Amino acid sequence: MIDQILKKIQKPTIILSKERVLRNIRRMAEKAKESGVFFRPHFKTHQSAEIGEWFRGFGVTGITVSSVSMAEYFSKKGWKDITIAFPVNIREMDSINNLSSKISLNLLVLSKDVLRILENFLQNKVNLWIKIDVGYKRTGIPWDDFDSILDIASEIEKSKKLNLEGILTHAGHSYHCKSREEILHVYNDSVQKMKRVKEIIEGKLAKKIKISIGDTPTCSLVERFEGIDEIRPGNFVFYDVMQLELGSCREEDIAIAVACPVVAKHPGRKEIVLYCGAVHLSKDFILNKDGSKIFGYLAFPEGEVWGPIIKNSFISSLSQEHGILKTNEDNFERIKVGEVVLILPVHSCLTVDALKRYLTSDGEEIECGFFKN
Amino acid sequence: MIDQILKKIQKPTIILSKERVLRNIRRMAEKAKESGVFFRPHFKTHQSAEIGEWFRGFGVTGITVSSVSMAEYFSKKGWKDITIAFPVNIREMDSINNLSSKISLNLLVLSKDVLRILENFLQNKVNLWIKIDVGYKRTGIPWDDFDSILDIASEIEKSKKLNLEGILTHAGHSYHCKSREEILHVYNDSVQKMKRVKEIIEGKLAKKIKISIGDTPTCSLVERFEGIDEIRPGNFVFYDVMQLELGSCREEDIAIAVACPVVAKHPGRKEIVLYCGAVHLSKDFILNKDGSKIFGYLAFPEGEVWGPIIKNSFISSLSQEHGILKTNEDNFERIKVGEVVLILPVHSCLTVDALKRYLTSDGEEIECGFFKN
Repeated sequence: MIDQILKKIQKPTIILSKERVLRNIRRMAEKAKESGVFFRPHFKTHQSAEIGEWFRGFGVTGITVSSVSMAEYFSKKGWKDITIAFPVNIREMDSINNLSSKISLNLLVLSKDVLRILENFLQNKVNLWIKIDVGYKRTGIPWDDFDSILDIASEIEKSKKLNLEGILTHAGHSYHCKSREEILHVYNDSVQKMKRVKEIIEGKLAKKIKISIGDTPTCSLVERFEGIDEIRPGNFVFYDVMQLELGSCREEDIAIAVACPVVAKHPGRKEIVLYCGAVHLSKDFILNKDGSKIFGYLAFPEGEVWGPIIKNSFISSLSQEHGILKTNEDNFERIKVGEVVLILPVHSCLTVDALKRYLTSDGEEIECGFFKN
Repeated sequence: MIDQILKKIQKPTIILSKERVLRNIRRMAEKAKESGVFFRPHFKTHQSAEIGEWFRGFGVTGITVSSVSMAEYFSKKGWKDITIAFPVNIREMDSINNLSSKISLNLLVLSKDVLRILENFLQNKVNLWIKIDVGYKRTGIPWDDFDSILDIASEIEKSKKLNLEGILTHAGHSYHCKSREEILHVYNDSVQKMKRVKEIIEGKLAKKIKISIGDTPTCSLVERFEGIDEIRPGNFVFYDVMQLELGSCREEDIAIAVACPVVAKHPGRKEIVLYCGAVHLSKDFILNKDGSKIFGYLAFPEGEVWGPIIKNSFISSLSQEHGILKTNEDNFERIKVGEVVLILPVHSCLTVDALKRYLTSDGEEIECGFFKN
């Protein structure tokens, strides 16, 4: 029971429901299998070797990471097929060469400058994905810049070290959607654009290439993946308040919460001070209807993990170590200094990166082994 | 020279100008000395034993931290007089007892509930500061709630374990000011309120107590501290873009920047992708004139550290590992994939907490020894 687990809590700590995590993984793995697409989950969300093992239980053999360091960490944990879904950082060429000597390494390219450096300095064969921008406008070659795309594809094909695996996109603009319909529209639009790019490349090169997509909102809402070869969602393993807000998960899919000691109460303004700040939750927020910021929702310990999200109770501001919980009269009275409350994070990836450790609802401690530097 | 140092950079790394740090410490230490106030710098900004030693060189003997964990870390590094400037987290009573057996420990209280628990469970004498809210509304007893303040002060005085050291405030509303005049007004207003509280307590208890204040904007701008006993600024050791925006530092006082590898360029929108995301810089931002967000300013390596902030060049969005640098035509052409640029952080405390390591402009590596859990 969660009450027993929380007795141990002294500092802000991520509580993880293994049952929910396994259910989230199972659902995505089964959908990928039924659709006949390769499931290459993004491990930047959980950053943990142990949670990685849970994925293996569902047949996962290839993974996605967001940095060379993270690839090194998971490679040491026995993963043999890793995509670094980030433009190649050529300053890490030694690490890339080391990795590619041991595992099947997949890199992202979007410029000929980088291709030339790879051609000159790579010591082993790697698979390349051309990064395509279907509308998010973070990075990638604009999908309709066919000349540039073909130019790069042809350059890759000329090389003996480089294998053109396919085209890859992250439709991150799904995070700006206001409804499930809009998210599904982003998905369909992305797939259409990617299929067009694939046709053009295959027409020119007489070679079959793959399409890889992957963001949690679209991968969660699409019933069946068609016309693509691979999905790379990451956040779905835990979900969070942002995904709930987007409609890409149900409340009961959210698999982590931060246990926060209550340190002070302010009756005058019905605000409670939690030991839980920006260095624990991160400063990502969603907007309330009145334009104010919400940095996390309140839940009370209940049953195996926690009960429903408490209406109108949320973290309204964060400083380095302080979180200010706004709530109503009843909950204000209920919560006592010295107790622990649970906060569902707005962005689970950043909360995990900040706290680097989990306590499961069964009392098991799990580490994130990966550190940035 | 900075160019030699940057050759080593493979991943986002904090570059620290020791010269600027020493200058920032010296200026604050001298001002405190001239004003006859005790200088108890907040170490949550740098979190590093080694940088702590630099403070000792200026006669610093007492420090401020923001958590019990941080107090444990600095206690192990030889600091014997530590204030934990955060409401007492009674779930860490064992650590508090351990600390107070070794060092002069100063805690913050604002409720009788917590006082009673301290009275029951403390094994050693500690000094208490009553946390007063002079207008920031984060935590503390409202300054004009004299009844509650006197009630707590009297309760402390009854105890043999608890010594009432004084009253303490953090005028964090100085961060919302729009001008130096407003910041100075916050300072004067805070000091007047604290002096009034002090008079009332001293009148009732026939005991002298101290006043402690401490936020970087006011401590930076005030020429001479009068009527107070102690200052606790922290951020001033490095400053950052937020402080520059507030007018509490000059550009040449900013002592850290993040060296970021350039990984992609997007000519169509004059945007450059840096390996430098939310997990490196943190998601704190300031607002641009048009209401858009700025997560850090661009500077180029120059001389010992970096040159002036480049106008109209800033990080406009951050995801987990990506930073999007918006710039103009000239700088877009100047910056090449594979190079390193420098980003001045919006909030140095959170950037340090994220990256946990420094490289000085002399090539020395400095660790932050403190971890959250």
